[in-house]
Amino acid sequence: MIFPLSKLGFVATRDSDLRGEPAEMADSKELSETLPGPGEKLTKTDFKARIPGLRVELVNAQYVLREAGFSMIVLLAGPDRIGCEQVVDRLHEWMDGRHLDTWFAGMATEEERTRPRFWRFWRSMPPDGRIGIFVGAWITQVIGELLRGQIDEKERDRRTRHFNLLDRMLTDDGTVVVKLWLDLPRKAMKKRLKRVEGDHALYVEDLDYTILEHYEAAQPVIQDLLEESGQAVPWTVLDGSDERARDLAVAETLLRALEQRFDNPPRPPVPAALEPARAHLAEVDLTQELEYAEYRKELEKLQLRLHKLSLKAREQKQGVVMAFEGWDAAGKGGVIRRITQAVSARDCKVIPVAAPSDEELAHHYLWRFWRRLPRAGQMRIFDRSWYGRVLVERIERLARPDEWQRAYDEINDFEAQITEYGQLVLKFWLHIDPDEQLRRFKAREKTDYKKYKITDEDYRNRDKWPAYTDAVNDMVERTSPDDAPWHLVAANDKRSARVEVLTIVCEALEKALKKKSRKK
Amino acid sequence: MIFPLSKLGFVATRDSDLRGEPAEMADSKELSETLPGPGEKLTKTDFKARIPGLRVELVNAQYVLREAGFSMIVLLAGPDRIGCEQVVDRLHEWMDGRHLDTWFAGMATEEERTRPRFWRFWRSMPPDGRIGIFVGAWITQVIGELLRGQIDEKERDRRTRHFNLLDRMLTDDGTVVVKLWLDLPRKAMKKRLKRVEGDHALYVEDLDYTILEHYEAAQPVIQDLLEESGQAVPWTVLDGSDERARDLAVAETLLRALEQRFDNPPRPPVPAALEPARAHLAEVDLTQELEYAEYRKELEKLQLRLHKLSLKAREQKQGVVMAFEGWDAAGKGGVIRRITQAVSARDCKVIPVAAPSDEELAHHYLWRFWRRLPRAGQMRIFDRSWYGRVLVERIERLARPDEWQRAYDEINDFEAQITEYGQLVLKFWLHIDPDEQLRRFKAREKTDYKKYKITDEDYRNRDKWPAYTDAVNDMVERTSPDDAPWHLVAANDKRSARVEVLTIVCEALEKALKKKSRKK
Repeated sequence: MIFPLSKLGFVATRDSDLRGEPAEMADSKELSETLPGPGEKLTKTDFKARIPGLRVELVNAQYVLREAGFSMIVLLAGPDRIGCEQVVDRLHEWMDGRHLDTWFAGMATEEERTRPRFWRFWRSMPPDGRIGIFVGAWITQVIGELLRGQIDEKERDRRTRHFNLLDRMLTDDGTVVVKLWLDLPRKAMKKRLKRVEGDHALYVEDLDYTILEHYEAAQPVIQDLLEESGQAVPWTVLDGSDERARDLAVAETLLRALEQRFDNPPRPPVPAALEPARAHLAEVDLTQELEYAEYRKELEKLQLRLHKLSLKAREQKQGVVMAFEGWDAAGKGGVIRRITQAVSARDCKVIPVAAPSDEELAHHYLWRFWRRLPRAGQMRIFDRSWYGRVLVERIERLARPDEWQRAYDEINDFEAQITEYGQLVLKFWLHIDPDEQLRRFKAREKTDYKKYKITDEDYRNRDKWPAYTDAVNDMVERTSPDDAPWHLVAANDKRSARVEVLTIVCEALEKALKKKSRKK
Repeated sequence: MIFPLSKLGFVATRDSDLRGEPAEMADSKELSETLPGPGEKLTKTDFKARIPGLRVELVNAQYVLREAGFSMIVLLAGPDRIGCEQVVDRLHEWMDGRHLDTWFAGMATEEERTRPRFWRFWRSMPPDGRIGIFVGAWITQVIGELLRGQIDEKERDRRTRHFNLLDRMLTDDGTVVVKLWLDLPRKAMKKRLKRVEGDHALYVEDLDYTILEHYEAAQPVIQDLLEESGQAVPWTVLDGSDERARDLAVAETLLRALEQRFDNPPRPPVPAALEPARAHLAEVDLTQELEYAEYRKELEKLQLRLHKLSLKAREQKQGVVMAFEGWDAAGKGGVIRRITQAVSARDCKVIPVAAPSDEELAHHYLWRFWRRLPRAGQMRIFDRSWYGRVLVERIERLARPDEWQRAYDEINDFEAQITEYGQLVLKFWLHIDPDEQLRRFKAREKTDYKKYKITDEDYRNRDKWPAYTDAVNDMVERTSPDDAPWHLVAANDKRSARVEVLTIVCEALEKALKKKSRKK
């Protein structure tokens, strides 16, 4: 089947310019004519005949993709490591390299090692319109660690779960995900290694001999892992014995995947209604109050405690991620300020979350939070957070119901990756009642300095109180794992809210540091 | 003088909420009333009296800045390292920490060390609307290296020149640059170190004792450096003996600098007319041609040579930065493709330069090129480049005359920093004549696959041929240092152009690698 670019105003045509030869109509064959049947071998003539047409189709598909509003991610891995590099070079030769983002697995850099494991992949995710090729993918490291006995079954399952969720998350977001596993019989690998070593020293590394040495032992580990990590998007296994056939098959697979996606834009599923959540917010006791003198005393004690804890956190490289959500005028800024006063600016940064930049909009919505995760030992306070997806984006219909409904799982997985890396996740909802909000709005209007904080929009938003209440209850119900629970903080009284948050932060940090000391 | 926020619709007011105490009108004094005269000491009462008003002014200034379309950069350094950290914490306490980007000098990370020296500063530059505080600044490292005898006078002068140019470049771009040097007599430093060590272990590091030990020896080095690096923006030296007075003085200096800038938007200078440049383009011989058979032979030889060189470059960690400019349809893409075919995708990336993202627009125009510089050992090919500033932005009046005229110096300095770090800079202008361009436009229209490449805009641009010719001649005249010269490549014949570029790349890379080997 020919790639139907004609529908989109493009017609596959000759690529004489791509090659610089005199302009003659190249007589391009389709892949179906050229790929060998079982037992046959692809002839050089057939291979050459297919190339001109194939290249034009690939480049054209890239141009269609640029306008299509989504991205493509290609995972390329397998024991045939040399084959993977050859395939990538081939794709760069055949396609427009300006719109390919290729990432090679290798040692994580220092900046990458001091953040949750997936940070290095997320930082390389292609924006809409581009193709990202991940050579070695995330799976390769796991295979190595399994074979060396560095991780157990439980850890393998945990990683596999993250892999599957990432595939699903990206696919749901519209990304075309293609996973290619380049297989090669042991004998062929040995032969190729020998040949390539002389010809193209570029490709060979010590790792290749290690792979060869442990080839047989690795097979069952790999088979299991391919199956388990292929639940959302299965791996396509290709035999790389015939290099030309392999390159054609890879290119064809990418083309078909794009073609499929251009022709069949995914139809968003109509999600089932959510099970009603418990009325978490209604359970918050808003009557508590704290006298000023008592507050000053408590605050001073807590800030000193937090200050000392932050010294230990720096020393022990304990990272902390905090998310603050709450009603407008609930006092998030004031609470955050009480935290930062106690911690050196060297260790703590506040991230105000406002409208995403255009680079952020061209990625999965979690990308902009991944890119701002702290290094080990650092504290990041998000003033509003990734929960915008299930709050304002839900209420204002900036996200479709299927989008915000699946966000609960996506967010749980995001936070799980942070806590598994050993960083602390602390989430606060500052709760006030509508009357208190109104009082504060009016007060702000009288305080010149805060006038800018109040607009008609804020008043209009008050009509959405019941909708937000539902959204908060749903959120608390669905994103409260043991190691990253929601803290619903009564904030009608600012003083008691500040003391409560500081107490929670201190206690959680103390516990985390103790746990870390025990581990050492 | 009170900060004139009233003009902008803001009125300095009480900050009771900032502190959480009961709402009473704080009776704030102005700084002029509170700062001690010579020989006097700031009393705690006067300090406290000034704080409420000061904080409101600072926060309000931040809000004005957010809408003002420029950024502020504060360099904070000096022997009083502890004082610097205290000041930063104080600013974070007094200001809105959500809109401060604070960077602490320290060991460069692996990712930073493998790129030109300034890369780590550029990656932390604040976007418009924000304040970036650089603690330790760029100067601290130079002082250390000078005292340890690691760099000579020549290198010191070179760095100082870059510092001054950076100050000027940022200031010219509208950024408010404030440079604060916190001084402290040796005795006071010793005393503070002793006191702080007990109270706030947060601040003290081994480095502080080193500074104390070499205090006297460092003085002449520091004095010279402060003077020499203060040519574009002078350092403000503050005595930090009285911590409260110091904090007030820092805050007041920042306020005054912002106030000054809000009240007096810089008026762009009217630049003098440029000295006419030589007619560089007219000297290019466009008649050369290469037969197809000869071309194929040459190309194969050159690509093999480049392939082998790229292996060595990877091994020797030789970075390469290439910029391709040229007339529309001059064949940039085809030339770039001939290079990437010869180099592994692992080592080489093509950066297509199109419209800047909004994050990029909120920074100095060179920021988007700094962020994409290659690591040591990598090759980056820019398909169009930072020269857009003096070409399309000049012609289309996207940059003012003073902006594109000063860009020559800015670009020379940018490239000098890359070559000084040891990376290779290669710049190509692909030259064709108007008739050849017209032929190619017509041919593209007939080639379905390239139709998207041709628009009415392209035809209209042909009227600007003389203007572009002037711009190219000016550019070549002014940005051709010995170690990063322009290569004007005759491209009426695509084949000879490709062979010429590949030859230049191979020869330059060979030379750079030989030089690198000799150094070892």
